[in-house]
This record gives sequence, C-alpha cells and structure tokens, in this order.
Amino acid sequence: MSLVRIHNLSISLDGFATGEPQSAEAPFGHAGERLHEWMFATRFWAAGGTTGVDDAFAQRHSAGFGAEIMGANKFGPPGWRDDPDWTGWWGPNPPFHTPTFVLTHEPRPSMEMEGGTTFHFLDATPAEALDTAREAAGGLDVRIGGGATVVRDFVAAGLVDHMHLVQVPIVLGRGVRVWDGLEALEDGYDIEAVSSPSGVTHLTFTRRAAS
Amino acid sequence: MSLVRIHNLSISLDGFATGEPQSAEAPFGHAGERLHEWMFATRFWAAGGTTGVDDAFAQRHSAGFGAEIMGANKFGPPGWRDDPDWTGWWGPNPPFHTPTFVLTHEPRPSMEMEGGTTFHFLDATPAEALDTAREAAGGLDVRIGGGATVVRDFVAAGLVDHMHLVQVPIVLGRGVRVWDGLEALEDGYDIEAVSSPSGVTHLTFTRRAAS
Repeated sequence: MSLVRIHNLSISLDGFATGEPQSAEAPFGHAGERLHEWMFATRFWAAGGTTGVDDAFAQRHSAGFGAEIMGANKFGPPGWRDDPDWTGWWGPNPPFHTPTFVLTHEPRPSMEMEGGTTFHFLDATPAEALDTAREAAGGLDVRIGGGATVVRDFVAAGLVDHMHLVQVPIVLGRGVRVWDGLEALEDGYDIEAVSSPSGVTHLTFTRRAAS
Repeated sequence: MSLVRIHNLSISLDGFATGEPQSAEAPFGHAGERLHEWMFATRFWAAGGTTGVDDAFAQRHSAGFGAEIMGANKFGPPGWRDDPDWTGWWGPNPPFHTPTFVLTHEPRPSMEMEGGTTFHFLDATPAEALDTAREAAGGLDVRIGGGATVVRDFVAAGLVDHMHLVQVPIVLGRGVRVWDGLEALEDGYDIEAVSSPSGVTHLTFTRRAAS
C-alpha cells in the first residue's frame, strides 16, 4: 500500500505554518521567508548547501512520490480563481513532476505543465481526493503538500501515515495554526523530536500499526 | 543585578502549559501528569532518577533564587480564596524555601511555613510585584513560577531575563497557551532548542543585551 506523507511543513514555535495576510507579494504574510530559511541553506534547495540533518530531512520531500494533493491557498494568492491564466507560483516547470491535485470549490480544466506536472482541480473531500490521487500515483506515495488547513484536514480524517514538521524558533502570533483540531494526536502516532544545529527542531509523526 | 528566570515550564506541542478544567483533583485538567513525566524521571525529582540533559535543566530550577512570584492559579484550585485555611498544594514544608509572592486580587495575611517559605499575597502589576520580590530576594534571582498566564504577563512586560520551556510531544488542544500575546519574541531573545532522548525538547530564551 502506498503511503500518505507530509514533509518539510515549517511552523513557528506557536504552531503557525503561515503568517497573515497572504498576498501575491507575501505568500506567507508577515512570516516572510523566515519559516523556510532553514531549507534554503540545504543542498536540497541549492548547490553548495549544507548536508546535515536539515538536508537529510528536506531530501525526503522528493523521493518516492507519484502524486501530490495541495490546497487552493498553496496554488495561488487570494483571487487566483478569478484569473483564468494563473498556472501556479512555480513557472512553466513546477517542482512536482507528478499529477498534482488542487482542492478547490471551483474546479477548472486540467493543466499539463513541463517536467511531468499536471495540475488537476478537485472539489472533493480528503478521502475522495486521496482515492483519486492514489490511483494516479501508480503505487507510489501521495504527498499532502499543504498548506496548514489541508494538512489538518487530512490528519484529522485519519489519512496520513507520516508527517514531518519543522519548528522554527520564531513566534508569529497569528496566521494559520497547524495544531487546531488535532487534540490527542499522540494516541495514533509515534513522535520523535530532533533539534538541529541550525536552530530548528524536526518533529516526525509515524502512524502506529493498528493493535 | 539579580536576574528574573523561568524554569521547567512544560508545554504541549500546541503550546498549552495546562489542560482544562483545573480542579483540586486535576490541577492540570485533562493534561493530567503528562506534561511533567519527563521531570519525574530525573534525579532532580527522585533519588535514582536520570542525570542527563533533562536533569541538567531541571536542577536549574533550584539554584540561586531568593524569591518566587506565582499566580493565584498555581497556589490553589478554583475556589481556594474562599478557604481561609488553604496554605497551598505543598504541605507544611513547601519546596520554595524563600519568600514567595502570590498574585491575587484578594490578598490575605502572610503565611510563614516550614523550611524558609513564607507566602505573601499581592494585588500588584508584574513590575510592582517584581520590585517587591527583588527587595526580598537579597541580591539573588527571582523565579517566575507560573502558571502560563503569569509567565506571559511577565514576558510581555519585558521583565524576564531567561526562560526555559519544555515541549512535551502531546497535543492538548485546549487549556492555557503560553504563546498568546508574545509575537516576535525572537527579537529580544536568543533561542536555543535541544531535544532529549526522553522525547521532550528544551527551549531556552536568553535576553539579548541591549545594543
């Protein structure tokens, strides 16, 4: 069975995966790029980057996936639905290289991009979307790409096998919090924390086998 | 100048320092003792306990203090103000061994306990309470003993030099959150994270010298 995985979801100490307000100029609002600087410093992101624990975790984002599911707020800034020419933040060759399912209440025709990424637009529950993505993934794993609301919805629905969060030592105070609605998450997951010399802490959640 | 320090304040992944509802039977509400198991396992707490990183941090709770300030919710369960005989949770010899200032809007006469602890009751702002505690501390440091609301108030007022939080891998979902109102805390503090083999992560905040 293919796995459902979440990787490299960066959060503040107070649990926000993005600041506010989100816009085309500031996709993460007042958080700016501070949630992701740890990743920019790794070889995963740039030649010559670090190859330590941050890189080891970051690299897992890419290996073994046959599809991604993302939320509408990851695909574009507020208002992208009104722009028929919007094709995502990532230019002609997006970094997904698989079928990529965008959850939206206003689906549009699929868009085939360069490099193997095709965007499909679904108005569906998490379970329905996962069925569709799994079929497209051809036996490989399915990544839940975020943002925080979609991650929460999939975790709360019991659909996630593995989640990797990266806690960055800043206090955002406002934004979208990843923890809301996930009380007692520890009942279903083995949780491991490892702090990195870069200052971030990697948190991994591995679903326990049903007993 | 004596320092103002916070030690061993345990929080859940989602930032709650206590669950709810709090009562005489369940001082931490639905969190039970889960926030503090890491500490019970150390030599700080019990002979024969561990002597690793958790113990190293825990021991700092005791050294160098001349006074403590705590909130009314740490001193007793809801309703303690209606019980003239309530002397705190800790029996005749409380573990403070210094003047200990309880913030309450309904002060009562001071109580001299065994072992050097005297409880004083203050209706005061954080800054006023700190002035009083500092005078009583005789040049030693002042501990802000919690709970989360009092910690937040003192940090927000810019009165805290050093804060040690212990993040426990559980998601409480509700209770009193330590982060609220502390946006951009990283601007004033150097922050360090170290994960322990026990599963908790120690977060330390060291106030930066004014530049």
